[in-house]
Amino acid sequence: AGILGATLSSALSTMVGAPRILAALAENRTIPLARVLASKTPNNDPRNAILVSSAIALVVIMVGNLDSLATMLTMFFLATYGAINLIVFIEKTLGIASFRPQFDLALVIPIVGFCGCLGAMLLINKLFTILAILVIVLIYSRLASKNLVSPWGDVRGGVFTAITEWAAQKAMSMPYHPRLWKPSIIVPVENPLNYRNVMHLTRDIIYPSGRLYCLSVYTENNGLSQLESKRELLAPLIAEELFVQDISITDGSFDSALPVVLQTLKSSFLPPNAVLLTISNNREKQKRLLSLIEKINSFQIGLMCLHIHPKTGFGQEKKINLWLRDRSPNINLAVLTAFQLMQNWDQANLNLLRVVKNREDIEKAVLNLEFFKEKARLPVNTAVRVIQGDFYEVIQQETADITIFGMPVPCNTMFDLIGKVPSTVIFLADSGLENAIV
Amino acid sequence: AGILGATLSSALSTMVGAPRILAALAENRTIPLARVLASKTPNNDPRNAILVSSAIALVVIMVGNLDSLATMLTMFFLATYGAINLIVFIEKTLGIASFRPQFDLALVIPIVGFCGCLGAMLLINKLFTILAILVIVLIYSRLASKNLVSPWGDVRGGVFTAITEWAAQKAMSMPYHPRLWKPSIIVPVENPLNYRNVMHLTRDIIYPSGRLYCLSVYTENNGLSQLESKRELLAPLIAEELFVQDISITDGSFDSALPVVLQTLKSSFLPPNAVLLTISNNREKQKRLLSLIEKINSFQIGLMCLHIHPKTGFGQEKKINLWLRDRSPNINLAVLTAFQLMQNWDQANLNLLRVVKNREDIEKAVLNLEFFKEKARLPVNTAVRVIQGDFYEVIQQETADITIFGMPVPCNTMFDLIGKVPSTVIFLADSGLENAIV
Repeated sequence: AGILGATLSSALSTMVGAPRILAALAENRTIPLARVLASKTPNNDPRNAILVSSAIALVVIMVGNLDSLATMLTMFFLATYGAINLIVFIEKTLGIASFRPQFDLALVIPIVGFCGCLGAMLLINKLFTILAILVIVLIYSRLASKNLVSPWGDVRGGVFTAITEWAAQKAMSMPYHPRLWKPSIIVPVENPLNYRNVMHLTRDIIYPSGRLYCLSVYTENNGLSQLESKRELLAPLIAEELFVQDISITDGSFDSALPVVLQTLKSSFLPPNAVLLTISNNREKQKRLLSLIEKINSFQIGLMCLHIHPKTGFGQEKKINLWLRDRSPNINLAVLTAFQLMQNWDQANLNLLRVVKNREDIEKAVLNLEFFKEKARLPVNTAVRVIQGDFYEVIQQETADITIFGMPVPCNTMFDLIGKVPSTVIFLADSGLENAIV
Repeated sequence: AGILGATLSSALSTMVGAPRILAALAENRTIPLARVLASKTPNNDPRNAILVSSAIALVVIMVGNLDSLATMLTMFFLATYGAINLIVFIEKTLGIASFRPQFDLALVIPIVGFCGCLGAMLLINKLFTILAILVIVLIYSRLASKNLVSPWGDVRGGVFTAITEWAAQKAMSMPYHPRLWKPSIIVPVENPLNYRNVMHLTRDIIYPSGRLYCLSVYTENNGLSQLESKRELLAPLIAEELFVQDISITDGSFDSALPVVLQTLKSSFLPPNAVLLTISNNREKQKRLLSLIEKINSFQIGLMCLHIHPKTGFGQEKKINLWLRDRSPNINLAVLTAFQLMQNWDQANLNLLRVVKNREDIEKAVLNLEFFKEKARLPVNTAVRVIQGDFYEVIQQETADITIFGMPVPCNTMFDLIGKVPSTVIFLADSGLENAIV
């Protein structure tokens, strides 16, 4: 009699509950034929759902083996209980303020509950357990791909936020080593429309694992159109899954905002390690650039000054000329940038170049550069060339698709050089965080 | 003869190699008795290491079973090869620029190599495999606890940076939902010495899983002492493993820097969602506060204005009075903050209070507040009180350890209230990202 009673009560509750659960699932559009199944009679009975679930029950009983059916049902019940335990555990771990249950539990209880459910499932039937988990994952991924927005929100974003917080704290507590250097560049964009080729080069420097910070300062009246064209500018990089952070400031000017933004970002985890500025031919703008460089110099951040040749641009993106002065302090960022460009330009060639005054110094300089090439682990097809003559005359002869210099001291000699070199030029100043040798 | 040859060549190479590896380990202080073992003869022979390794070899051969010894050695060789494959895989995945091997491999090769080594180990002997891995983990954790700085750096920091980048990108691509709200407060600190109690309250709001951003603007001449006292200010929070980000700006004033910093942080992952400002009794500073609030208002960030009572401070940290006006727009952040404080103050009590003009409105207001208490899932011991009378007179009678108001409109009525309420007061304005009901 006890068994009969238990069976009947279980059967009755299922008979009433199952169709209503089916109807509720249909209401949230999580199953096919949602419109039909969700419809209800004026008495609020989900008639269609009752018919469908009865039909399913009858078919299964007639076709199947009742014993293995019971096992399967138990499995899914256990899986549901296990999932609830898992969810309680996750929400509790995330530490979000919205999780304030009336009945609070120690963290260990959902863990024990989840492990218990999983253990019981494995004890009953190992094959079915794996099958049940597979079915659940399948249903979940189908629902996730539908991009359903549940009315009560979801906490998936919170999971990643919590991971970010954890990893960021860990990363900040670890010591930095130059071996960890990745290109991580902040580009102040004045007018997004003029920055298409700058962004193209930046992409070729940071790809595939670097970071880009795009800073723009806009005023009230041109804000919307700027935001729009900036989004368009960054879209191709985001499509490549590069790390892009877009910073828009509505307040103040570039020259006053940039130092504050740089200092704020430097103190964050994942800071940028270089600023990319463009060199204009305009005297006024060159002066502004110099004063900006002076401000930035104290922040321990690399500096990239780019002048795109108005005619040739980046040419065929094949030939990279890297000029290495003897004992230059700004050599590491230049080498690393050249290396990144060579990786991302298709079949590009790197030339290490140096100018010497006297013929007898040539051999020593060649040995020197070859040694450096070996130490910096540059590719074997890197060419080394030492030219005798006057620096300013020699550089006028050397064509390339991009010419890379270490930042000269004083840095206003940049403005003389950009007029002379017959290609796009980029000047690079180390921050002290780079090391091309390690 | 073949077997003999193989055995002899293997034995010879081990005989020469082993003592030198032992000496090298000693040189890097990774084993005990480092000083003795690292010493070398003038011929550069590590004599002590040779003696020790010979002794070990003799003892093992005499005592042990040669067969199981061979198994064990093979295990450790396989483990070493597996570890190298794993390291290549990790360094390649991190995408750091310093990983530019002469002989580049597809990512799949180290994976196959690692799995192959592990598989071979498991095939040979399952128990030994687990033992070998345990021994390796033990040695690693011992070395890690010694905080050795290897001369060639390590990439552990890079692993966490890569995880941070991955999770941050994921988190940013997920939709935000008010359920994910966590207290995440930026506190502009003018003088660290005066902010000890402000920081104490902030800690009680964000604990255990919120975030704190501490912003200070300092000038050249007082920079060092300020940095020092700021570090002291934040040390207890960092010791509790709270998420603390310290931002120091050397350029410009508070009023100009704060909007730029806020906008920069808002565009980062893990942005703050509230600013905590202090209210002074000084008329001039109150004016500055109002203009600052006006600037901040457009940034979709919550606002907390704190006035610490000069005499009572936070009292016993027991009684929290939360005044809820009817239909106030600034209710969510106030409720969530009160909830956080109640969690972190030991046995604190929360009172929901409202003032009504007429006696007949009392009952309705009580029902209203009780309903809200239920919806916001506030603890059952939350008291609801509705008082009839004039607002400004009533609040003068109500003592508490902290009094919480929604931000009044216009917000300069704050300055009238702080003089009247006989306790520390905090005014809270919603950002729109909070929801106390979900």
